[in-house]
Amino acid sequence: MLSEELPNPPAPQGSYVPAVVHGALVMTAGMTPRVDGALRHRGQVGADVSVEEAQEAAAIAAGNALAAAVAALGPDREVERVLRLSVYVNAVAGFTEHSRVADGASGRLRALLGEAAGACRVAVGVASLPGGACVELELTCSWAPREGR
Amino acid sequence: MLSEELPNPPAPQGSYVPAVVHGALVMTAGMTPRVDGALRHRGQVGADVSVEEAQEAAAIAAGNALAAAVAALGPDREVERVLRLSVYVNAVAGFTEHSRVADGASGRLRALLGEAAGACRVAVGVASLPGGACVELELTCSWAPREGR
Amino acid sequence: MLSEELPNPPAPQGSYVPAVVHGALVMTAGMTPRVDGALRHRGQVGADVSVEEAQEAAAIAAGNALAAAVAALGPDREVERVLRLSVYVNAVAGFTEHSRVADGASGRLRALLGEAAGACRVAVGVASLPGGACVELELTCSWAPREGR
Repeated sequence: MLSEELPNPPAPQGSYVPAVVHGALVMTAGMTPRVDGALRHRGQVGADVSVEEAQEAAAIAAGNALAAAVAALGPDREVERVLRLSVYVNAVAGFTEHSRVADGASGRLRALLGEAAGACRVAVGVASLPGGACVELELTCSWAPREGR
Repeated sequence: MLSEELPNPPAPQGSYVPAVVHGALVMTAGMTPRVDGALRHRGQVGADVSVEEAQEAAAIAAGNALAAAVAALGPDREVERVLRLSVYVNAVAGFTEHSRVADGASGRLRALLGEAAGACRVAVGVASLPGGACVELELTCSWAPREGR
Repeated sequence: MLSEELPNPPAPQGSYVPAVVHGALVMTAGMTPRVDGALRHRGQVGADVSVEEAQEAAAIAAGNALAAAVAALGPDREVERVLRLSVYVNAVAGFTEHSRVADGASGRLRALLGEAAGACRVAVGVASLPGGACVELELTCSWAPREGR
C-alpha cells in the first residue's frame, strides 16, 4: 500500500499548509529533502554537492511531497496522476545538469506510482533555497476515489 | 469590505494581464512590491535588504496580487481560498530564511482573508527580479459567487 | 492552420512528458530555445547574451511549448487560451529587464494565437538553466473542442 512506503509528511516551516485539495487537483507546498524533520542534504550542486547526492535529495523531497498529497487526500481518495513537477536546484552559476537532478525525483515517483508518475516537468537553477537545501520541489496531481472502497 | 482594504492592482509591466479567471480558478501574474505604481523595495535580501524589509515587501506584493485577483473576479464573485502562493526572493547565495520572508506575504493574506488564506506555498531564492525588486510572488486561488448578492 | 506554423515539439531531456492534458487544462514542461533538437541560445543575459537575443530565445521556447500543448491535445482539440506563462531568465545578479525578455515569448504567442494569448505571467531571474539555456518557460492553457470538426 502506497501510504506505507511513504515518510510522514514534513511539518510546514512557516505559515502555510503542506497540501491543498481543490476540485480534481491536489497541490503541494515546496518540499525539501527532510528526513524525520531534519534537512538531510544542504549546499550547492556543483560546489559542495554532487549531482548524485542531489538526485538522492530530489528523491527524498519527491517522497515528502507525495506524502503530503496523500495525507491531504485522506483514506478515500488517491493520487490519480502527477500532472506537473517543478524542481528548483540550488546550483552554481553555469550548472547545466538540472534534468539529471530532477530525474532523481521523477524516478522515485515512478517507483511509487508507476505510470501515474508521468508528469510534465520544469527544472531550474536557483541561487538559494530555504534552510540551505540543495533541492526543493512541488507537485500538482489529479486525484480519484480510491478503488475498492 | 475586502476591496476597500486593497490597493489598486498595479498595471502590467509588459505584454500580459494581471489576472486570469478560468473555471473555478483565478491566477495572478507575478507581483512585486509596487505602491502607487512605483517599486517600493529594491535590492537583494542578505545584502542591502533585511529580512524584515523583505517581509514588508512580500506583504505589499501579496496585497497587489490579491487586488488583481479581486479585480478580475468583479463584483459578483469573490476569492474562496488561496490554493497556492509562490514566492521568489531576490537573495544572496547562501541565504536560508526564505520562509520568514514568505511569512510576510502569508500574514498579509491571512489578515485580509482569514482562514481562506490557508494555501500551500513554495519559496525559492532567485538571482534577480524585474526592476530589481527584492520579492515577487504569484497566487492561484479558487473563487465562489459572492454571498448575499 | 496553427500546427503548420509550429516546430516539432522538442523531445524531453529526461524522465518526463512534454505536456499533460487534464480536465479543461493543458500544461507543458519547461521548454528551452531548441531548434531541430539543438539548443540555439546559451549563456547568461547581461553577460554573454543581450536582451534582444534573449527575446528571440524566449520566442523560440514559446513556440516549442505551444507545439507541445498542441501535440498533446491532438487533432480534435485546440488551445482556447493561455492562462499562465512562467518565464525563467538565466541572468546576471542585478539584471532588471526580465519583462522585456518575457515579452519575446508573449509576442510570439500573440502572433500565433491572437487574443487567446492574453495570459497572466511571471518572470524571474535564475542562476542557471538546463543545458546552459538563457531562457526556459512553461505554459498552462485551457482547451476547447476544435471548431468546425
